Amino acid sequence: LTSRLPAVGTTVFTRMSTLAAQAGAVNLGQGFPDFGCERSLLSAVNDAMQADFNQYPMMSGAPVLRNAIVAKIAAIYGHQYHADTEITVTAGATQALTTAIFCCVHPGDEVIVIEPVYDSYVPAITLAGGVPVAVEMEVGANGYTVPWSKVAAAVNGKTRLIIINTPHNPTSTVLRAADLQALSDIVRGTDVLILSDEVYEHMVYDGHQHESVSRYPELAARAFVVSSFGKTYHVTGWKIGYVAAPAALTAEFRKVHQYNVFSVNTPMQHGLASYMADPKPYLELPAFYQRKRDLFRDGLKNTRFELLPADGTYFQCVRYDKISQQTEAEFAEWLTTEIKVAAIPVSAFYQQGKESGIVRFCFAKKDETLALALERLGKV
Amino acid sequence: LTSRLPAVGTTVFTRMSTLAAQAGAVNLGQGFPDFGCERSLLSAVNDAMQADFNQYPMMSGAPVLRNAIVAKIAAIYGHQYHADTEITVTAGATQALTTAIFCCVHPGDEVIVIEPVYDSYVPAITLAGGVPVAVEMEVGANGYTVPWSKVAAAVNGKTRLIIINTPHNPTSTVLRAADLQALSDIVRGTDVLILSDEVYEHMVYDGHQHESVSRYPELAARAFVVSSFGKTYHVTGWKIGYVAAPAALTAEFRKVHQYNVFSVNTPMQHGLASYMADPKPYLELPAFYQRKRDLFRDGLKNTRFELLPADGTYFQCVRYDKISQQTEAEFAEWLTTEIKVAAIPVSAFYQQGKESGIVRFCFAKKDETLALALERLGKV
Ligand SMILES: CSCCC(=O)C(=O)O
Ligand SMILES: CSCCC(=O)C(=O)O
Repeated sequence: LTSRLPAVGTTVFTRMSTLAAQAGAVNLGQGFPDFGCERSLLSAVNDAMQADFNQYPMMSGAPVLRNAIVAKIAAIYGHQYHADTEITVTAGATQALTTAIFCCVHPGDEVIVIEPVYDSYVPAITLAGGVPVAVEMEVGANGYTVPWSKVAAAVNGKTRLIIINTPHNPTSTVLRAADLQALSDIVRGTDVLILSDEVYEHMVYDGHQHESVSRYPELAARAFVVSSFGKTYHVTGWKIGYVAAPAALTAEFRKVHQYNVFSVNTPMQHGLASYMADPKPYLELPAFYQRKRDLFRDGLKNTRFELLPADGTYFQCVRYDKISQQTEAEFAEWLTTEIKVAAIPVSAFYQQGKESGIVRFCFAKKDETLALALERLGKV
Repeated sequence: LTSRLPAVGTTVFTRMSTLAAQAGAVNLGQGFPDFGCERSLLSAVNDAMQADFNQYPMMSGAPVLRNAIVAKIAAIYGHQYHADTEITVTAGATQALTTAIFCCVHPGDEVIVIEPVYDSYVPAITLAGGVPVAVEMEVGANGYTVPWSKVAAAVNGKTRLIIINTPHNPTSTVLRAADLQALSDIVRGTDVLILSDEVYEHMVYDGHQHESVSRYPELAARAFVVSSFGKTYHVTGWKIGYVAAPAALTAEFRKVHQYNVFSVNTPMQHGLASYMADPKPYLELPAFYQRKRDLFRDGLKNTRFELLPADGTYFQCVRYDKISQQTEAEFAEWLTTEIKVAAIPVSAFYQQGKESGIVRFCFAKKDETLALALERLGKV
């Protein structure tokens, strides 16, 4: 059997979570909360099961959930999508991203990705027969930024898609209006499409605003916008996400979607739809996570780790070059097995494994968990 | 945007279910039960949610569920898979099938499918860059059979995969030991792989036995065997399935799986694992559905429809040539809108839309639903 993905091993998240479990380490590696979700969300799903919402939903998603998604996007970002033709519910954001790539990337097409890049994009592009073209973010005093002139220079007649991610995993960068403007200038007059991974849309701090692509009509008209309920509602294991895209793109998306998963868990969709009627959980999320971020950053100030900015997501990147000259993978492994705090090497987000002396921690943890991790990291 | 699947429209199941709803018809089209599942299964899922099994499961599936699957296969089919390296839990059987095709079919590879063929296989092969090669089943007095000599003749140096489906949708054919023997003879000494869709494994009637590929070590050594919980436990909307395959095939499967969906709904996996400990539900399923099949067949004997054999699945095919000379699509539409009973045209399972004067009914319905449908069909 000749592999279709010869370069691919097990994801860094699985590897580090396994190592963390073996080492008995506090797992600040893979991004997921170690606290529970609201009980009313669980009751909503249970009610849907008990009411016999257990057979195939519509292929595009349960209408109640698509309507709730449309209402939320309109309320926050001011863009009015059509529930019937522009929203598709997916088996998590990863499936949305991969299906979006599959429905528009033909063999030989180029796809621009911004490095560090979430680890599913490039294998999906490769499987589709596309060619990933990486543009590296630059790191300065203000943290990581996207060099749009380099993105512009990478666009050519073969470019089919540009993938962006804001708030950005792993760097915590939140794109600003000027970034979206630069992207608009690049794609205007071309037929390049946009895939925007916005799964951390509700985790933006210090009064910044999430610049969803759906705020920008010129971009939204050519974009797949992806989000996820798992991150927002503390249920990463439910694997329900969605994609919003203009009708012509959605039509192609659904062709692939219907033969990839056909449809998505019915009772979870109904439970989420009724829970979403209340905006409070996502409106309160920035304050909830900003407090944890501050608690974690304050604790790290007493250590030899150097903090990078963290404007969004539930991740905090740190430089460790005052502590060790090991590669990021070695250092993350050492932290996990010796210090008993797991982290993710940022090098895993570069196709060529670039070394920057930076690792990523996840602060979506109970205060006690963060306190224990900080106590251990303070000893380094 | 140039379509990657230009030939693809909305699936026949979605189209006929939509038409059935509009027409107020009894929906015997798309295959799903119109009755509830056992309440203890719902409690098991709710218990898992309440116990905070709501974060990412392992990429390959929750260990408790993989262990339960291994135990079930060993008990019924006598094949001992390894839970760690040979079982992967998927977001439904469709995702399992598509991912299996993706992980082994390279551009230009040929894949043999048996027509009538479930509608997701060919688009998945096409998306992977593969070439579908169809071999038609033959229809005689004993219903549909697979002409293995034609399958043998279709195998050549480019053949990468043969996809089989038993019990077979839409024809209700259950492959016999002699069929599996013929398949073994064809692939012996080649490097052709097998993908076996066995989602109706527990719906086999009249004392026949389900000849799972996993009963045949020679075949199992080169096969992806796919099943689903939705069909067996009356929860088609939960979208949880699995694939069993030797370690080398599973390793390639997981490379694609981890970037397609990454992992699958956690509380559903835990709920299913605890519910599966009791074999009663699937052991009782043949008798449960055989009674419904007989009820439906008996009712149809008083009509002008001609019954084909139905050894397995929850589908019944009928000839309508004594009633109408319409195409199958026209006739199914007429049945739905005029007679108020929805059916599926079997032509939708042929790439070239072959007409056989046969439509498919689903009898996974309450007795009252079947009675109402029979009353209406009796008037035709
Ligand atoms: C799908 S597992 C990885 C979770 C995640 O997005 C991350 O840790 O970056
Ligand atoms: C995935 S919807 C179709 C259900 C089904 O398998 C069928 O009706 O044949």
